[in-house]
Amino acid sequence: MQLIVQKFGGTSVADAARMKAAAKRAVEAHAAGSNIVVVVSAQGKMTDELLKQAYEINKEPSTRELDSLLSTGEQMSSALMAMAIHSLGVPAVSFSGRQIGITTDSFHTKARIVNIKDDRIKEELSENKIVVVAGYQGVDENDNITTLGRGGSDTSAVALAALLNADMCDIYTDVDGICTADPRTVPNARRLNKISYDEILELTSMGAQVLHVRSIEFAKKYNVPIRVRPSFNNGTGTLICKEVKEMENIVVSGATVSKNDAKITIIGVSDEPGQAANIFHELAKEKINVDMIIQNASAHGLTDLTFTVSKEDLPLALKTTERIKGEIKAKEIVADDKIAKLSVVGIGMRSHCGIAEKMFKTLSDEKINIQMISTSEIKISCVIEEDQAEKALNAVHNAFELDKEQ
Amino acid sequence: MQLIVQKFGGTSVADAARMKAAAKRAVEAHAAGSNIVVVVSAQGKMTDELLKQAYEINKEPSTRELDSLLSTGEQMSSALMAMAIHSLGVPAVSFSGRQIGITTDSFHTKARIVNIKDDRIKEELSENKIVVVAGYQGVDENDNITTLGRGGSDTSAVALAALLNADMCDIYTDVDGICTADPRTVPNARRLNKISYDEILELTSMGAQVLHVRSIEFAKKYNVPIRVRPSFNNGTGTLICKEVKEMENIVVSGATVSKNDAKITIIGVSDEPGQAANIFHELAKEKINVDMIIQNASAHGLTDLTFTVSKEDLPLALKTTERIKGEIKAKEIVADDKIAKLSVVGIGMRSHCGIAEKMFKTLSDEKINIQMISTSEIKISCVIEEDQAEKALNAVHNAFELDKEQ
Repeated sequence: MQLIVQKFGGTSVADAARMKAAAKRAVEAHAAGSNIVVVVSAQGKMTDELLKQAYEINKEPSTRELDSLLSTGEQMSSALMAMAIHSLGVPAVSFSGRQIGITTDSFHTKARIVNIKDDRIKEELSENKIVVVAGYQGVDENDNITTLGRGGSDTSAVALAALLNADMCDIYTDVDGICTADPRTVPNARRLNKISYDEILELTSMGAQVLHVRSIEFAKKYNVPIRVRPSFNNGTGTLICKEVKEMENIVVSGATVSKNDAKITIIGVSDEPGQAANIFHELAKEKINVDMIIQNASAHGLTDLTFTVSKEDLPLALKTTERIKGEIKAKEIVADDKIAKLSVVGIGMRSHCGIAEKMFKTLSDEKINIQMISTSEIKISCVIEEDQAEKALNAVHNAFELDKEQ
Repeated sequence: MQLIVQKFGGTSVADAARMKAAAKRAVEAHAAGSNIVVVVSAQGKMTDELLKQAYEINKEPSTRELDSLLSTGEQMSSALMAMAIHSLGVPAVSFSGRQIGITTDSFHTKARIVNIKDDRIKEELSENKIVVVAGYQGVDENDNITTLGRGGSDTSAVALAALLNADMCDIYTDVDGICTADPRTVPNARRLNKISYDEILELTSMGAQVLHVRSIEFAKKYNVPIRVRPSFNNGTGTLICKEVKEMENIVVSGATVSKNDAKITIIGVSDEPGQAANIFHELAKEKINVDMIIQNASAHGLTDLTFTVSKEDLPLALKTTERIKGEIKAKEIVADDKIAKLSVVGIGMRSHCGIAEKMFKTLSDEKINIQMISTSEIKISCVIEEDQAEKALNAVHNAFELDKEQ
């Protein structure tokens, strides 16, 4: 028997009518003979409203209490979804993350799933029920409620799909699928029919806000096919799957720009072995993710080290580097949060030359200065001035002719 | 060390300002050297809003899903309350009913507490934290979330107070305390300084909406002193405690009128042993609470049986009695939901004569017809026409001079 996991995001369950429309999709797939697990996010702006309430009461709310507060949004959705399915005459039962047995580590507000039990979910499925699970949440080993971070419901859905060896994980959203670039910035962006895990992973890491990045890591690891599809029409969306031969011909699949980063430069670090390790060890201890790192050629035994972190982490990253400034014998620490990171991603890069040159040339023609460069096997990223982000994205999208089917 | 349980109702935590004011009370009592457990209800009209959403989606929502939905309101409040206490610099930690170890039976939407664990709460109290507990909820033995019915947070508070052998259970509300009658109906109603468990139990059962009736049963059983006190000023409220000698002089403590009941009359039941037992056995199976019961004197082997149930239960009660109509050989079943139940309550009734006569005379003088009468050791109730409820309550309140300190 087929098993499908369907995940509905906040806009897809925002009110009674949408909740019922989503329930109808689940019931139709169930009627077609599949086992169905539904994962839901909190309704509409619920999470934002809860956060607002929290910050009204306490400017630095405890993350444990935040998780307990925020997890209620998905629990509500799951109960309402079960009721909506009942109203269509199909048996259903809702569970919180904890009830279904999702255990996580204890990093509140950005916890990672460590284990999921399958006994209760399998038992309910065997009774022909649609099982509705509150996304975004779990519980740590001390029975404290945890959440998986913004977009974490995607990860709940893919993790459940992996656990249950699902045939498909359908992610219903308010967009038509995954595009070559964000259509709000690039008017001629085109929907992709298919994309590989690696490409979407790079695009997401580089700022494309389609899926929770952890969910793709899970999908890749357990080979879970994901279909990102529209809630509000019958579009086929975009299939995310493992790489197939035909993808190698696609030099660039997508382009993206992110304004979520900030840049820190540590000037005049003494050029001795272990200094960089020192710095990044301290940052890691604070759970700060460092993205791009550049170290300039050493002159007179001193070197400059530049790296990017998320804007959110900038204050803590600055505090941490200032703290060890003496130890690493640095002269000065400079921060810049008016940057953007422009990236192009494509599996074909592995076997095609000249992609980087074409990107640099395009930016140069537009008089856009490149501050930092970082590359991977299937990605090139440039840090540029924030104000030039939109212009740069459109220029690159045109240069690689992403609007045309390849 | 003293231990105080403080319970804050929905209006007392309705917004950020009120939440902080409530937190301040907890922190002050904590600073004065007591261990503090705070129990919270859902904010303001939260529960009503959630119910509205549920009924928009499903006209007959599953009670299991309703409980999962409704319990989120108190969980939110508890997390926000912990944040509010943190903002005043005092350690606090919130727990859902399940997390703190409240187990109930499985009667969703009106579950009863069967057990509470004390290990986690005692551990947190020993670390000098204020422990905040989401009221109104628990979990059954199959890990389904349950709720205790409207006002159930009172019961959570008193049950915790009993478990922890608390010195006081403070119930903060939007009224000044317990009055001789509802001040909205009786303008000269007077706040009582003290009232016994038995009296408040009768008043509550008869429609006074101050406390959840189960909470008083708990308090009486475990001798937990309760103080019903105002949130929004420093009034001393009303102490509910076990009966003391001086209370015997108070003939009538309070009067109340309830419009929550409906009357069912089964006409022409064959007057054989076991017929009444039959009827009430069937009603009990459906979890319908029957309040007053009157059986008229038998004539020609037939009898009429009249009883009251809550208006809410009327449709089910009618269905149930219709179902066994043949079996009990009844002629006809008649229902009337336009009734009111007027009650006066006082410990002094035990040792004073003429209370019933005075009540009947007062109603008679007002030309109010009495349809049913029921008495207990410390209570007299009369069923009257619904339209005359307010007039009757005022007349009785005046007749017994309840506005004057006795």
